[in-house]
Amino acid sequence: MFIRNTWYIAAEPQEVTTRPLARTLLEKPVVLFRTESGRVVALEDRCPHRFAPLSLGKVVGERIQCGYHGAQFDSSGACALVPGQSIVPPKARVVSYPVVEKHGYIWLWPGDAAGAGDLSSIPDFLYRSGDPDWDGGYGHFESIQANYNLINDNLFDITHAEYVHPESFGGEEMRLYRNSKPGDEYLDGQMTWTSSERGVVFRMRSLNMATGGPFYRWMVATSLGRDSYPDPIDLDMEVHWGAPSYTSFLLNARPAGKPREGGVEVCNMHAITPETASSSHYFYRSVKNYGDSELAKIFVNGVKAIFDQDKPLLEAQQRRVGSRDLFDQEPVSFGGDLLQQRARRINRALLEKESGS
Amino acid sequence: MFIRNTWYIAAEPQEVTTRPLARTLLEKPVVLFRTESGRVVALEDRCPHRFAPLSLGKVVGERIQCGYHGAQFDSSGACALVPGQSIVPPKARVVSYPVVEKHGYIWLWPGDAAGAGDLSSIPDFLYRSGDPDWDGGYGHFESIQANYNLINDNLFDITHAEYVHPESFGGEEMRLYRNSKPGDEYLDGQMTWTSSERGVVFRMRSLNMATGGPFYRWMVATSLGRDSYPDPIDLDMEVHWGAPSYTSFLLNARPAGKPREGGVEVCNMHAITPETASSSHYFYRSVKNYGDSELAKIFVNGVKAIFDQDKPLLEAQQRRVGSRDLFDQEPVSFGGDLLQQRARRINRALLEKESGS
Amino acid sequence: MFIRNTWYIAAEPQEVTTRPLARTLLEKPVVLFRTESGRVVALEDRCPHRFAPLSLGKVVGERIQCGYHGAQFDSSGACALVPGQSIVPPKARVVSYPVVEKHGYIWLWPGDAAGAGDLSSIPDFLYRSGDPDWDGGYGHFESIQANYNLINDNLFDITHAEYVHPESFGGEEMRLYRNSKPGDEYLDGQMTWTSSERGVVFRMRSLNMATGGPFYRWMVATSLGRDSYPDPIDLDMEVHWGAPSYTSFLLNARPAGKPREGGVEVCNMHAITPETASSSHYFYRSVKNYGDSELAKIFVNGVKAIFDQDKPLLEAQQRRVGSRDLFDQEPVSFGGDLLQQRARRINRALLEKESGS
Repeated sequence: MFIRNTWYIAAEPQEVTTRPLARTLLEKPVVLFRTESGRVVALEDRCPHRFAPLSLGKVVGERIQCGYHGAQFDSSGACALVPGQSIVPPKARVVSYPVVEKHGYIWLWPGDAAGAGDLSSIPDFLYRSGDPDWDGGYGHFESIQANYNLINDNLFDITHAEYVHPESFGGEEMRLYRNSKPGDEYLDGQMTWTSSERGVVFRMRSLNMATGGPFYRWMVATSLGRDSYPDPIDLDMEVHWGAPSYTSFLLNARPAGKPREGGVEVCNMHAITPETASSSHYFYRSVKNYGDSELAKIFVNGVKAIFDQDKPLLEAQQRRVGSRDLFDQEPVSFGGDLLQQRARRINRALLEKESGS
Repeated sequence: MFIRNTWYIAAEPQEVTTRPLARTLLEKPVVLFRTESGRVVALEDRCPHRFAPLSLGKVVGERIQCGYHGAQFDSSGACALVPGQSIVPPKARVVSYPVVEKHGYIWLWPGDAAGAGDLSSIPDFLYRSGDPDWDGGYGHFESIQANYNLINDNLFDITHAEYVHPESFGGEEMRLYRNSKPGDEYLDGQMTWTSSERGVVFRMRSLNMATGGPFYRWMVATSLGRDSYPDPIDLDMEVHWGAPSYTSFLLNARPAGKPREGGVEVCNMHAITPETASSSHYFYRSVKNYGDSELAKIFVNGVKAIFDQDKPLLEAQQRRVGSRDLFDQEPVSFGGDLLQQRARRINRALLEKESGS
Repeated sequence: MFIRNTWYIAAEPQEVTTRPLARTLLEKPVVLFRTESGRVVALEDRCPHRFAPLSLGKVVGERIQCGYHGAQFDSSGACALVPGQSIVPPKARVVSYPVVEKHGYIWLWPGDAAGAGDLSSIPDFLYRSGDPDWDGGYGHFESIQANYNLINDNLFDITHAEYVHPESFGGEEMRLYRNSKPGDEYLDGQMTWTSSERGVVFRMRSLNMATGGPFYRWMVATSLGRDSYPDPIDLDMEVHWGAPSYTSFLLNARPAGKPREGGVEVCNMHAITPETASSSHYFYRSVKNYGDSELAKIFVNGVKAIFDQDKPLLEAQQRRVGSRDLFDQEPVSFGGDLLQQRARRINRALLEKESGS
């Protein structure tokens, strides 16, 4: 049901400390912690002795100690000490998940450990995370009551924005910008997309936007130190989607007619990690190449506020969808679903490849 | 499990506005709304595109617009518009439920639409609703955690009143009034009942009630402008039950010996609509032929207060009954259950007729 | 799944009054009450008429009256009165559970009534309950979300104390006292245990405890009227476990070198009664042979405070264990589990004997 041989975001780096963190990932209870030397470890969160969660214990040196009877486990998942006895039962071990810290996140590999050496499923379009010229902040929602595919659909879907987020991304007028052809009143029409084995890229250029697009317009205003910018603007948007659940939006906005190179840029990055079949964790970042930390806070809070509009909708959608996959229930498709369906197909192919069917 | 080819109350009229109302009826999610021209519409509350509840959208003219991607549905359930495309997929439609406004309620027909033209299952004993000489008010409980038959049993059951509602309908003394014969100290004994294919009518006359019956006694007092009425009273009660879940109580009370025609009358009407197999909506009205609107409020609040005594009992009963029908679990019967059992049999016969068994 | 032919604690005596008490025991709804003459009665908490809980009714003389239609049931479970009719249907009866008041508790027998005459499963090691020289208090936790065996394991397990309760029973140093041999720095080493068909007894002597054991040390301090006692102490501990779920700890503490006879004693008694397969009631008492009622309150509050440390752990353990028995899921065993496993085996043998397998 889940693609397993791939990397998922398990946590933000600052969440993983010597105080154990419990998190359910792909229906498995996992404890994440940092050893005293700073190593990040992810173990099955269930002591093999009496099944107490190891996350209720504590980190002791390079190990985690069960809070119930004091058994200690090292980063390989092996039990290294049982209090009061010199021999440790060989079966006393828990699953240890490969973890890696990259692009500003702690990633976990839930699949066959043999494949964990391949980091290619960590998408490089989250590359700005480590660039010191880009400022920004983190946020996440835990345990959204919706299957990860529904959230994935939502994030890689610009057509819902005008109904769910009209006061930020803009209302009906945005459809005009998106759909207009050269010769129309609006000078865009440059919509292109490409897909690969694990991803889809979509590019859109909207030139001479005379109205609408409050968020893009506000980017231009803040870059000029103004409260608002009522004149026409130009916008480039580059959207990357990567299997199974990564989306980034790179936005470049500037006064109409100015070169793209002088535009200010914001990159919003989104990642979903399945919690269970019907719930998910959603990690996001918002980074930008201008402004200060205060502005960065406004951006990351904006991503939160915008998703707070999606969340009740997604959770209501999940209640209607129930336990079967939406696409096994013959939903009707619209033209705007094209790229989303492509993403769904990529995920389905990866899943079938994994299960050998 | 539910009788479907019959009319159920879906809402009070003032609940259905241009702001969509979500309600689960007979285990189906339904959205109720009034179009801008005032037409009442009830649709399946699930957009066929991505299964978002239409109730999270909004009314646009004569249609409802999905809050997720803007698809619009007309009152027939057909999708009439998909934003950004000229052709609407023919499979894009939702179930439209026949609705009718009658006797002061919005009624919904969950069965075969072919039969919806027959309004005979809307009981006429709720007839006083439209009579301008009768004043009164509405109320309802949503999502009582009990199967509709348990609530139905409760409402068409005068024998529980002396244990659950002694301070309103009266305690043990009421049994004496009900059961006494001519020649007893009390002059009643006129208890009759008749049944038909879809209903049961029960009549009771209690003459010369010297004590007890606080509610009936209070009716007489308020009709005379007094605080209390300690002298003997006469009471007529006419109880109508109609399949699957309608009960009305017409009460006529007056000082003992006065003609019935001069008595003041109150009619309390009760209707249950299944929400799920183990939960129900309960709609009630209390109307009367005397007094003012302030008194009307007191009556309708009284119905609420009285049912607040039944509700915890019914919900506890449901927990003991569980998922099987009570009558499939061999409950013991008492003499006082006669009419209730008759009502249950009528419902069972209708259900069997529908299912062809 | 539960051992049924044995006595369980259903309630503390002061909980059972003429006001009915509802409690789920071994997955059965039970109503407990005291008749007006003072007799304790335990009945199936479901009226056979309409399945309303009898616990919502009231005690009338020697009977309980259903709160819905007034049917009355005597202590044998037979319906003794149906209002308004002279004949009571013979099938109108509920299960009556044998109950007995002993050792300061109300005990209930959920099994074959034929065996209820045998009180031998009420453990005598709760004997101090009735001894007027011993002062103490009661407490209990209702509906702990953990299977009774997990709580049982926890109570008959001194090895978890140093990890879960270091600030009361003491931390790692306690293992030294327990495991030291004659000739070690510590003079104990007297650890013995015996088992029988229905029980296990464990004795431990720790002499000359120079550090640690805050609770035992505090016993000595309070017996001497001091705030603390930093000098070495001697401790005897006698732990009784009885099937299916009884544990008592008799503690004798005194200044090191003093005779045991002069030590002050505390006895903490613990009993678990299954509520459902995944939840339990936990009854406890703490009695002592010295000090006053104020000190008694401190002791019983101490037992509560200590179990408040175990409770989240046990409930988390239950979530990991799920619906299958822990021991059917191949947990790893440690040396310190020896006596706990013996107790588990005794329970399993009793269960198999009962089920004839």
